Amino acid sequence: MPSSATYIERDLTTERNALCRVVAELAAQGWCQGTGGNFSVTLDRQPLRLLITRSGVHKRHLKPEDLMILGADGSPVEGETAKPSAEALLHTRIVEATGAGSVLHVHSLANTLLGEHFADRGGFVLRGYEMLKGLEGVATHEAEVFVPVLRNSQDMPVLAEEVGRLFAERPGVHGFLLAGHGLYTWGAGLEQAGRHVEIFEFLFECAARRTRFEPFTGQ
Amino acid sequence: MPSSATYIERDLTTERNALCRVVAELAAQGWCQGTGGNFSVTLDRQPLRLLITRSGVHKRHLKPEDLMILGADGSPVEGETAKPSAEALLHTRIVEATGAGSVLHVHSLANTLLGEHFADRGGFVLRGYEMLKGLEGVATHEAEVFVPVLRNSQDMPVLAEEVGRLFAERPGVHGFLLAGHGLYTWGAGLEQAGRHVEIFEFLFECAARRTRFEPFTGQ
Amino acid sequence: MPSSATYIERDLTTERNALCRVVAELAAQGWCQGTGGNFSVTLDRQPLRLLITRSGVHKRHLKPEDLMILGADGSPVEGETAKPSAEALLHTRIVEATGAGSVLHVHSLANTLLGEHFADRGGFVLRGYEMLKGLEGVATHEAEVFVPVLRNSQDMPVLAEEVGRLFAERPGVHGFLLAGHGLYTWGAGLEQAGRHVEIFEFLFECAARRTRFEPFTGQ
Amino acid sequence: MPSSATYIERDLTTERNALCRVVAELAAQGWCQGTGGNFSVTLDRQPLRLLITRSGVHKRHLKPEDLMILGADGSPVEGETAKPSAEALLHTRIVEATGAGSVLHVHSLANTLLGEHFADRGGFVLRGYEMLKGLEGVATHEAEVFVPVLRNSQDMPVLAEEVGRLFAERPGVHGFLLAGHGLYTWGAGLEQAGRHVEIFEFLFECAARRTRFEPFTGQ
Repeated sequence: MPSSATYIERDLTTERNALCRVVAELAAQGWCQGTGGNFSVTLDRQPLRLLITRSGVHKRHLKPEDLMILGADGSPVEGETAKPSAEALLHTRIVEATGAGSVLHVHSLANTLLGEHFADRGGFVLRGYEMLKGLEGVATHEAEVFVPVLRNSQDMPVLAEEVGRLFAERPGVHGFLLAGHGLYTWGAGLEQAGRHVEIFEFLFECAARRTRFEPFTGQ
Repeated sequence: MPSSATYIERDLTTERNALCRVVAELAAQGWCQGTGGNFSVTLDRQPLRLLITRSGVHKRHLKPEDLMILGADGSPVEGETAKPSAEALLHTRIVEATGAGSVLHVHSLANTLLGEHFADRGGFVLRGYEMLKGLEGVATHEAEVFVPVLRNSQDMPVLAEEVGRLFAERPGVHGFLLAGHGLYTWGAGLEQAGRHVEIFEFLFECAARRTRFEPFTGQ
Repeated sequence: MPSSATYIERDLTTERNALCRVVAELAAQGWCQGTGGNFSVTLDRQPLRLLITRSGVHKRHLKPEDLMILGADGSPVEGETAKPSAEALLHTRIVEATGAGSVLHVHSLANTLLGEHFADRGGFVLRGYEMLKGLEGVATHEAEVFVPVLRNSQDMPVLAEEVGRLFAERPGVHGFLLAGHGLYTWGAGLEQAGRHVEIFEFLFECAARRTRFEPFTGQ
Repeated sequence: MPSSATYIERDLTTERNALCRVVAELAAQGWCQGTGGNFSVTLDRQPLRLLITRSGVHKRHLKPEDLMILGADGSPVEGETAKPSAEALLHTRIVEATGAGSVLHVHSLANTLLGEHFADRGGFVLRGYEMLKGLEGVATHEAEVFVPVLRNSQDMPVLAEEVGRLFAERPGVHGFLLAGHGLYTWGAGLEQAGRHVEIFEFLFECAARRTRFEPFTGQ
């Protein structure tokens, strides 16, 4: 097992390029406006090491040097000087709970609006759509996929605990929303996680176009 | 007439590149999210040979090697090792019934929502739009174009039979929807089939923007 | 003044490339789906000569050889072998009436829906938007811009007469809609005409998002 | 401190290229249709010098030579021959009031519609969205961000005075709308200002999708 120092020295060109490519494709679809979103791939599990986007960089033209390496507690490994996103802790928690090879977090109009709309009910069910089969393990459009919605918070340890509880109660979820904030989804690897983003966002937009949102009054 | 083995050995570079190019244009419009959609061109008719997208590849950057060759029953020809999409059987059935040179299947927001909305009525009529003339053989905006909607199913032989019945009843259709799933359309060749996708999707979005969908409740 | 034959022999590379570039930009915005739209620049006025898109080519990747040269009556000049669009006659009529250096015709969701919606009333007024100033000669957002809507027809001579009547009644119009069909607009030159397309389509989408369209019933 | 003449002679290649790159990204998102929008970076403060887009150029392919240099009163510096936009005066006023390193003005569907809708109430409040944190200094989604809406006017000195009053009353604003016209926002530098455009436009579209606009009647 490589030490932290080794990670800093290692050539992770392939991993860095792959993550940049996938993130650029998501950003091109409008899901990372204004430096929004954060994205990781799992490098090692014992101890946990994630390659993750740094805080405050725009994702449309993400470059390999805009990525950094984190340990299990969401803080930079030894020798890493960049500042991680505050939400890095959620990535580590999701990887620990699900064994994900990649965790992706995006902001879309539909996921922001649906998360806000369904916050009080704790989530919503998607059913009847063929595209549900794009979620790993879903074999039929007749499946019911529950999308949990957690209240948004700026207190990451509190939010990480909420996420932990969620996985204890619903081990099979493919993703969740933070209300008024965005989607977290993941997959066995980067390609599968990217597919889950596209599948969820397609279904969210279908749902959003049918949802009677509370009118915006500007007050 | 070439044998199956010949197909595997043949240089189909032109056909493969043309299909990749057209699919990439459709995918760029958001109609193949999350590896969705499948696409074929007819190579030979006696016996039937289709060049078709493999299962599970993303269509935005489709490569020539992501295509495979199928025979009349929707299974790979001798020597072909890739896994076909479950829906390959529908392609062969459509080609047999219509003589199509290309069959294209896409998932859009509008075709998903309209298919779901009109499933109980078995379809809907488009009329009054100039763009209808983009469908081969339609000469005026005053034409009425019926778009059949079939119930979605994971049982492909059952679905293929439904499709067969549809062609028996309505030999002139240019395409059909599977409810909550997507559009199948086709053409004498690849360019015409691609044009039909764009025409239908334009008209579907016109219709969708005027449709009062059943509200999404998330339950 | 060059003869028709001269036109066929002349090097119109600059004019052809400029038109292809502008049309590609419009097509990239979804306004020429499925080979839709037609586009011209005025080469000469006495006698009238237009460089115009041929019938049935896709506009997203328009090539210089996809253009052809027409005379005053909308038919090909001597030596020109390509088939013009049926709507070429409208281009010549517009150039004769307005002195336009370029005529552009696009199909958008908003112009299709608004044309259909306002056909019975013969048009609609746009006012209060700063973007109106993008129409040549409009100096303030307080201007009222009337957008005429003509009934669609497959009889081009009849439609050309309607267009002639429109210019007699409203010499200052910047463009008009054919109901359920699309926008015709023009300008002193290609750049101005292209700007008019973008201005109108922006304003149409503003209007469409505020319009209560008649529900689509599919019957 | 360099004289005006020096500016005309200076090599501002880096500044010109950076502004062109950012504007092209905004234009690609549909926010500068038909030569709409204007954009500046602050070169010097004593006396004020802005690098700003010239009037009437399309922003999608903005070139370094499409930019010009202005002084404090919004008029060209000595030796500058290009025509500034009438709205250049607003840029100088905003820089003087906020110390901005860059001022960006865009036209979007959402900002046009919301500005028109909320003109009578003088603005609207955004709250509850994580994306608010993309505005510099906003630390939580629970923040309330007021977006002032000023009445549109073609009288720039009058509008500049209105803008001056706004900053006196609400020194902390991140941007404002002109009704039926568009967004002005700014930042310490070009990147931050560009981020503010994306953040505001994302939030405006969220709000617009929930807003019951007054129906468009076309009269």
